[in-house]
Amino acid sequence: MFTGLSAFPLTPITAGSIDEQGFIKILARLTAARVDSMGILGSTGSYAYLTREQRKHVANLAKQHAGDIPMMVCVGAVSTDAILHLADDAQAVGADALLLPAVSYQSLRDEEVFTLFETVTQNVSVPVCIYDNPGTTHFTFTDELHGRLSSLEGVRSVKIPGVPNTQAAATERVHALRQHLRPGVTIGISGDAYAGLGLNAGCEVWYSVCGGLFPQMAKQITEAAAANDHERVTALTTRLEPLWSLFHKHGGSIRVIAAAAGLLGLTDMDCLPRPLQPLSAGNIADIAHVISTLELK
Amino acid sequence: MFTGLSAFPLTPITAGSIDEQGFIKILARLTAARVDSMGILGSTGSYAYLTREQRKHVANLAKQHAGDIPMMVCVGAVSTDAILHLADDAQAVGADALLLPAVSYQSLRDEEVFTLFETVTQNVSVPVCIYDNPGTTHFTFTDELHGRLSSLEGVRSVKIPGVPNTQAAATERVHALRQHLRPGVTIGISGDAYAGLGLNAGCEVWYSVCGGLFPQMAKQITEAAAANDHERVTALTTRLEPLWSLFHKHGGSIRVIAAAAGLLGLTDMDCLPRPLQPLSAGNIADIAHVISTLELK
Repeated sequence: MFTGLSAFPLTPITAGSIDEQGFIKILARLTAARVDSMGILGSTGSYAYLTREQRKHVANLAKQHAGDIPMMVCVGAVSTDAILHLADDAQAVGADALLLPAVSYQSLRDEEVFTLFETVTQNVSVPVCIYDNPGTTHFTFTDELHGRLSSLEGVRSVKIPGVPNTQAAATERVHALRQHLRPGVTIGISGDAYAGLGLNAGCEVWYSVCGGLFPQMAKQITEAAAANDHERVTALTTRLEPLWSLFHKHGGSIRVIAAAAGLLGLTDMDCLPRPLQPLSAGNIADIAHVISTLELK
Repeated sequence: MFTGLSAFPLTPITAGSIDEQGFIKILARLTAARVDSMGILGSTGSYAYLTREQRKHVANLAKQHAGDIPMMVCVGAVSTDAILHLADDAQAVGADALLLPAVSYQSLRDEEVFTLFETVTQNVSVPVCIYDNPGTTHFTFTDELHGRLSSLEGVRSVKIPGVPNTQAAATERVHALRQHLRPGVTIGISGDAYAGLGLNAGCEVWYSVCGGLFPQMAKQITEAAAANDHERVTALTTRLEPLWSLFHKHGGSIRVIAAAAGLLGLTDMDCLPRPLQPLSAGNIADIAHVISTLELK
């Protein structure tokens, strides 16, 4: 399941509660588009803002509406005990894989992160994807650590946060990381703005936020990548630059995707967990314009 | 209660559980030294690693053993809902004040942090101290934001993460911040290595990690500050530089203080919440040497 398009849907939260109907509508778009897998409760899925009970409920809802599409669930938390409980919950509701970031409060050492992954993989029966996201977790993986982690039997993929912004450098980056990984462990690009460079550099999977809302468009890109049509990958992703600019302007994708989900009528315009607040009316108008211009639907 | 020595004790965690007897022994040192207040479940108190239930239990234990010493409880969490629940719990067990950091996962905007503090102060009946700790929360307060927050009726103190490392610059820094604050809102220095500079710059309180384990020593320093004896403050804090060096070497104070608590026989040598791991035997020997040389007890 660690290839192709892995779509990471928003978890809409309205008036302090999970908008179940909104979430189900978003999931329906993913099953209709036949994404290759779903990444539930990723960063855009607001895992960090929800209680253990809410996270189990969201994962269960997703499983009920995922049909036969494999489901990965993020089990990120600061404490190892919390992660193990979340992993139990995710498996109990039918997660096919777990996504594990190194969320830090006190800064973490490599050995502490290695032991965390060792503990988790020893305690679960489904495969694990390493979630490398220094922007939110404030832990930076070295390639050597990725290599050590990939030697753990349960580890099957690495979700990287981006690549350098020329194709040659991106290809060199993915190649360098791959030298450290156990054969068979896939590399997935995330940071949607890097999708084209990452896929053309040989990443086997796109862990995609915009694919969690606009899966048809994202699937065209991963299908072009699977066909080794680098030019088409570049053309399709370059076309989306106005969307990447919005992500950049608003400090990441979550506020933009939340606004877009509201604009599509899938949930309320205010669907972010507090303390996060929706964007201003002016910014939302800009997002509406980009969605319209790019014919995203 | 936002003046003098506010001692921030470790919450010892052994074999995955709170070491209640160890915690009570640490608290007894604080009451014996007559610290001016206690800061329970601060960063070194591992709030970020504990469940809601564990945090309520720790706060309750502290209240039972604090005697007449005022108790502030940290209610930090990523989500506003979680913070409000933690604030309810802390007040229910008798917290005299709340310490509120701006813990981030997605990056926070100033307006979001302002609304968070506004919401919390409107929902609690005890005063609130702003916890400015960018090293762990990854949110940076501007002086303007501190000023706006200090206009909220419930806000009574600001815990700052440090000051520039010359006395003139430190004094200018504290003076500049004070221009923004509502009169009566105190400024507290933290980052123990900055205690001398901060107190001599006019900070009214030392929010102190080492004071959470070595309160007699810390109280000598805040008493010298209260007597305006700047030279004695400088002498007493400069003497502790080997301890500050250990904090710096080990990426903060928590691993060093945990080792010191073990060396004093108050708890086990392994008393950190996973994924954090205790320091190596060699590093612990260095800590024992510094404790002995400085006659910390």
